[in-house]
Amino acid sequence: MKKSENFSEWYAEIVEVAGLTDKRYPIKGMNVWTPYGWKLMRLVDDLVRLEMEETGHSEVCFPLLISEDQFAKEAEHIKGFGDEVYWVTRAGGDDLEVKLLLRPTSETAMYPIFALWVRSHADLPLKTFQLVNTFRYDTKQTRAFIRVREIHFFEAHTCHANFEDAEKQIVEDIEIMKRLAKKLCLSFLILKRPEWDKFPGAFYSLAADSLMPSGRTMQIGTIHQYKDNFSKPYDIKYEDENGDHKYVNQTTYGMSERLVGALVGVHGDDLGLILPPDVAPYQIVIVPILAKGIQEKVISECKKLETELKNAGFRVILDLRDVRPGSKYFDWEIKGVPLRMELGQRDMDKKVVTFARRDTGQKMEVDRGDLISKINETLLTIAENLLDRARNLLKENTFSAQSIEEVKEAFGIVKVGWCGEESCGQEMEESTEMTMLGTPVEKEEFKGKCVMCQKPTDMVVYMSRTY
Amino acid sequence: MKKSENFSEWYAEIVEVAGLTDKRYPIKGMNVWTPYGWKLMRLVDDLVRLEMEETGHSEVCFPLLISEDQFAKEAEHIKGFGDEVYWVTRAGGDDLEVKLLLRPTSETAMYPIFALWVRSHADLPLKTFQLVNTFRYDTKQTRAFIRVREIHFFEAHTCHANFEDAEKQIVEDIEIMKRLAKKLCLSFLILKRPEWDKFPGAFYSLAADSLMPSGRTMQIGTIHQYKDNFSKPYDIKYEDENGDHKYVNQTTYGMSERLVGALVGVHGDDLGLILPPDVAPYQIVIVPILAKGIQEKVISECKKLETELKNAGFRVILDLRDVRPGSKYFDWEIKGVPLRMELGQRDMDKKVVTFARRDTGQKMEVDRGDLISKINETLLTIAENLLDRARNLLKENTFSAQSIEEVKEAFGIVKVGWCGEESCGQEMEESTEMTMLGTPVEKEEFKGKCVMCQKPTDMVVYMSRTY
Repeated sequence: MKKSENFSEWYAEIVEVAGLTDKRYPIKGMNVWTPYGWKLMRLVDDLVRLEMEETGHSEVCFPLLISEDQFAKEAEHIKGFGDEVYWVTRAGGDDLEVKLLLRPTSETAMYPIFALWVRSHADLPLKTFQLVNTFRYDTKQTRAFIRVREIHFFEAHTCHANFEDAEKQIVEDIEIMKRLAKKLCLSFLILKRPEWDKFPGAFYSLAADSLMPSGRTMQIGTIHQYKDNFSKPYDIKYEDENGDHKYVNQTTYGMSERLVGALVGVHGDDLGLILPPDVAPYQIVIVPILAKGIQEKVISECKKLETELKNAGFRVILDLRDVRPGSKYFDWEIKGVPLRMELGQRDMDKKVVTFARRDTGQKMEVDRGDLISKINETLLTIAENLLDRARNLLKENTFSAQSIEEVKEAFGIVKVGWCGEESCGQEMEESTEMTMLGTPVEKEEFKGKCVMCQKPTDMVVYMSRTY
Repeated sequence: MKKSENFSEWYAEIVEVAGLTDKRYPIKGMNVWTPYGWKLMRLVDDLVRLEMEETGHSEVCFPLLISEDQFAKEAEHIKGFGDEVYWVTRAGGDDLEVKLLLRPTSETAMYPIFALWVRSHADLPLKTFQLVNTFRYDTKQTRAFIRVREIHFFEAHTCHANFEDAEKQIVEDIEIMKRLAKKLCLSFLILKRPEWDKFPGAFYSLAADSLMPSGRTMQIGTIHQYKDNFSKPYDIKYEDENGDHKYVNQTTYGMSERLVGALVGVHGDDLGLILPPDVAPYQIVIVPILAKGIQEKVISECKKLETELKNAGFRVILDLRDVRPGSKYFDWEIKGVPLRMELGQRDMDKKVVTFARRDTGQKMEVDRGDLISKINETLLTIAENLLDRARNLLKENTFSAQSIEEVKEAFGIVKVGWCGEESCGQEMEESTEMTMLGTPVEKEEFKGKCVMCQKPTDMVVYMSRTY
């Protein structure tokens, strides 16, 4: 199956062929993380953890189960999630007196405890995060990493003394998203979702949308300003310097295994995955080129190379399987290893190794003496190239439209004028079968008309088909 | 509360005071992992991962939910766990056609998929593991880390071509347990559980038991030989070299957050936790000793030290809180940081730093030039001391008894003769209100009589009260 011909089928196939997941688990929307996929996910998690640590967030781990009464405290929230939660009603032989639900997200698990943790202004800001499994009984078509019912989830939750401090947190979150996306070689838009599409209970919601080659966007991160919408029902108060008791202002930041879905969809090609060097489970595969009589010398040299590269901090695998090099190339191309190193007698005689870049296929000979610096340089170049491609994908598929007809016909992302009225917005979505992604956070100059009511407006909104 | 006076109350209190957990979550047996506790758990997990990696196990992550029909395939297994599973019966607004349960352990999640993964002898051995949350609706008294209903769990699952290969895996597992326990400075017995106490579905079960200062033992790890007890109902077969189809032989290896419970209980003292250097979230705390007029110089020197130690690979925290040194000592002693470093003007003048060991309270002056090597040496000495203490605790509280009366009165672990008959064994348990832990895996010379029926026997069994 070729990516260029049928993205959707290519995606469905490559995630299994490359060993990222096994979709044969007998419950819909719940897949098995196979070793290669789980290693990739964990490397992505490590990048997230690093960002969290450097910005002063503490990692916690809250229980999975939430009691119905805690869940029901914030009205909008239960309205938004009530229809997609899994309910535990029995345990052992007993019917539970209070039903428990599997967290779809952890506000209602955390906030009763935050109310105990936050006492005074000295406890603020409270910056926490966790990496956990969450559950949503989503009735739409499932798709590995993109739409599943057990979700590997990242969620940061913060409490602040006032709205302004919470706003600063959101600025920090956007910076984190930018740094993280750069390491993942992903390009994205940060948009403020329209009122009717914000997180249930939020004051406003921002989202990071990435464009997939199918022309649909995928939400890969969300950042929410809660203001005091949750701190009031959950009674999260602090005593300020003057002895007054005030409600905290809260934010959250969510990401998920969708990041893996984006890596697969955005970077891959007809040959398989192409993984960014920062998260590739193996950054380098060493393939010995063997001929009769020279096996042992070459293999021992390959082992030496493997050790040398591991000691230099690279993630390396030496492929000693008893199959031909061509077949090894094929397998590792599918798995998206950014750099292949070949070593045969001829290379040894010349004191070189041969590299092949996964992203371009380009081959090059490198002097053994320059090895480490050349690898570092090449991995960096690969990352830059992947990022460039992702940026181009987004840029080349973002269009401006003047009429609703133009919007309907567009592939990718469309920018149009909007008067700001919900009625016009909803009509835009219905008539195009697209989603209004929202307005750009970094204000864009615009002068035009609302594509529905034709009123003059300076507000531009982004629309697209979505995952 | 003093450990030496009331272990049980001390334990219940210290886990919260030291910041390992918050027990105020409104569902029984489900606690919140607070940042310090979660960091400790994750460092323990890292040691486990390292062992798994070095012994060729691959990390996977299977879904949490298991359908009732998959769960019901192995009769003994469902008998053993059926009474303590949480059932998901509804999702969104729908009653589920097939009920789902929260994994109490993952045999029945994994083995239908193993049946797809294992095709030929070339796929064997299959060595996998995962670190996940599991659930048991346990009706006994809950206790942080020791008896909880959501359990942070490690489980390794392996498939082998034959029984002998599976037996070799068990030998490897015991070696892993030894290496791991050494890093955690824990002492333990490896015992073969009696038939009536083996894992539901196992051919036989081994367990690692650690002794707590209360005189009760705690199971901190289990290793099970399944033979083909699961591969038959789950149809996990391979084609051997001759084209014959055979059932695999399986083993599992389980550990959990109980390792944290053991660290707390075994090493702590009246002042708080004492954490082994290999897993202490902070191995060193730096406390500046300030006097008027010299603050800035001392603080800047402390920051330099912090950077130097971090660069050398230590986990370090510099405590710059605006409270007196004594109060800082107190707090970090509670948290069990193995090494405290004090630095004041006097130390700077002498070009030394002052150390205090958490395990002995011993103070010493170290030349700045010897710092790194001295820290390494001291952390090693602390680890050895903790391990020695744990070994002594176990050794000094293991007794031989000749009569059932002696058993009843014993504190700790009792070794007695047993004829091997289940009826005698059950009677021994009932009359003493102790648990028969089992027979030593490394055979012990013994000549005596069964403590119940008085028949001569060469079999010795271990008994104790347990958690």
